[in-house]
Amino acid sequence: MHILITGAAGMIGAKFLQRLARDPGALGRPVTRLTLADAYPAAAPDGLAAAVEVRVGDLADTGAAAALIAGRPDLVVHLAAVVSGEAEADFEKGYRVNVTGLTALLEEIRAANVAEGYRPRFIYASSIAVHGAPFPERLDDDVAPAPLTSYGTQKAIGELLLADYSRRGIVDGIGLRFPTIVIRPGAPNKAASGFFSGILREPLAGKEAVLPVADTVRHWFASPRSAAGFLVHAATIDLAPLGQKRTLTMPGLSATVAEEIEALRRFAGEAAVALIRREPDPAVARIVAGWPERLDARRAESLGFSADRSFDDIIRAHVDDEGIGAA
Amino acid sequence: MHILITGAAGMIGAKFLQRLARDPGALGRPVTRLTLADAYPAAAPDGLAAAVEVRVGDLADTGAAAALIAGRPDLVVHLAAVVSGEAEADFEKGYRVNVTGLTALLEEIRAANVAEGYRPRFIYASSIAVHGAPFPERLDDDVAPAPLTSYGTQKAIGELLLADYSRRGIVDGIGLRFPTIVIRPGAPNKAASGFFSGILREPLAGKEAVLPVADTVRHWFASPRSAAGFLVHAATIDLAPLGQKRTLTMPGLSATVAEEIEALRRFAGEAAVALIRREPDPAVARIVAGWPERLDARRAESLGFSADRSFDDIIRAHVDDEGIGAA
Repeated sequence: MHILITGAAGMIGAKFLQRLARDPGALGRPVTRLTLADAYPAAAPDGLAAAVEVRVGDLADTGAAAALIAGRPDLVVHLAAVVSGEAEADFEKGYRVNVTGLTALLEEIRAANVAEGYRPRFIYASSIAVHGAPFPERLDDDVAPAPLTSYGTQKAIGELLLADYSRRGIVDGIGLRFPTIVIRPGAPNKAASGFFSGILREPLAGKEAVLPVADTVRHWFASPRSAAGFLVHAATIDLAPLGQKRTLTMPGLSATVAEEIEALRRFAGEAAVALIRREPDPAVARIVAGWPERLDARRAESLGFSADRSFDDIIRAHVDDEGIGAA
Repeated sequence: MHILITGAAGMIGAKFLQRLARDPGALGRPVTRLTLADAYPAAAPDGLAAAVEVRVGDLADTGAAAALIAGRPDLVVHLAAVVSGEAEADFEKGYRVNVTGLTALLEEIRAANVAEGYRPRFIYASSIAVHGAPFPERLDDDVAPAPLTSYGTQKAIGELLLADYSRRGIVDGIGLRFPTIVIRPGAPNKAASGFFSGILREPLAGKEAVLPVADTVRHWFASPRSAAGFLVHAATIDLAPLGQKRTLTMPGLSATVAEEIEALRRFAGEAAVALIRREPDPAVARIVAGWPERLDARRAESLGFSADRSFDDIIRAHVDDEGIGAA
């Protein structure tokens, strides 16, 4: 099968590719061709026996989407996005990439659908940032999105487009509302949520990390390993049970910053915890205060999606996957 | 004050203009200037002491939105839309007018906002078509839109844009989810809901009407007079209580086709009812089956919005407003 991944140079794309390389049978049929698209050159994974094409550019540019769809991928994994902090700072860039880019891709698929009945599976990466405070007691897929950021707005618009293009038979679409992913490997990105990873990743590597919010902040998390698992599952299951409601809240772990720190203490000791420097940032705190603390993912769980059970598991997965030495 | 009305040639636009002409103090300050935009030439209302400019064109065309915003209207009433039946039949036209047209307008306002702090009140006409079956017991503003038409999808996208541009301080926005408006005067439009009006309007004028669905179909209605009242109220109230949730389900009347017909019988007698010809249309029935029967508009009611109490009232308002002789 031929897979197109947009945003393939990003963390979730890389984790999905690693998973396919380690477990070539994951999707039920061999991956023979990969198109990796991003604004930056994506790295082809080692050990994957597929023809790999790397494309660099802005999805919203004229002709960019057409070039990606020309090869008629069987599966489109649409991860390309401007993240929350950047979409808030750069209004135009956020809408261009997160809405216009998605629309360009869907419109190219529609043209091929009209011409020749082409209809790929389309996995759309959405986010719990579609929700905004105040929250109802049960935050499930039936609660109206009320985003408090442009990023959340753009993701919610994408969900609506995905559902309409799916209803029209243009794509076989599934949207995944990702929890905040921890521990993000590598360098920090521009997401306002970056510190949730930083306060574990940096001390685990013997470096200082900044904590811009209070210890009592509670949020909804999943590991990169779980995120890759969500994509594999979304690529393979029957989507008929979704009906018109094409986007699912992914399972996650509800935990506080203090619980993160306790897990770090258990794994790496007091010296690691001492590397966390408290430096309150009201701008970050304000954005994070608009995010949910806990979601109801029973619908996704009933379809077989699953995530991490504890921060101890999340730290262990990070150390295993990234090959980092622990205390 | 200067008011821009898009879709001003449509029924709700005309009713709003009539209301302003009859009740010049309705908005609290005099209307000195009116810009009436539509794909067709809008009629300036008799008896309104304002400078009127009529503009004809497609809002999504290059430069069209800029020309409308150049006069810096204090109030924008955005009614322009491709309706449900047509947006379903013409995918591209629906998205162009209902999404690209709105975006063009908001982007022109944003440019003026950045340049000079311009921030008009912006009333966005949304629709109960953002909801799709199956429905929860209570269908209020906190229920996630799950549209079953492209029109409903486009309206829901517009609501998200309205909220984000409002949050950013670009517009002082309020969205109104209109009930199905009955009795629509004049010729039928392309809305799948047109028969709800036709089965009253045509017999009241001594003409035959077609009923494409069963008598038991229940739906959510308001009169054109109430619709104009919603706009007047939305133009004048303080929007701070809306918070981030900028769109409100408007009050309405839940009634069946049979109840419509009984009100017609009471008002115009058996001969009028005999003019209704039953001609089932599965395509219309399928669209209508995806629409809600009853909504919870308590949030709007608490902000002072109100609608009709019975179909007898709705028929009486039609006959009074349109100057139609009754039996």
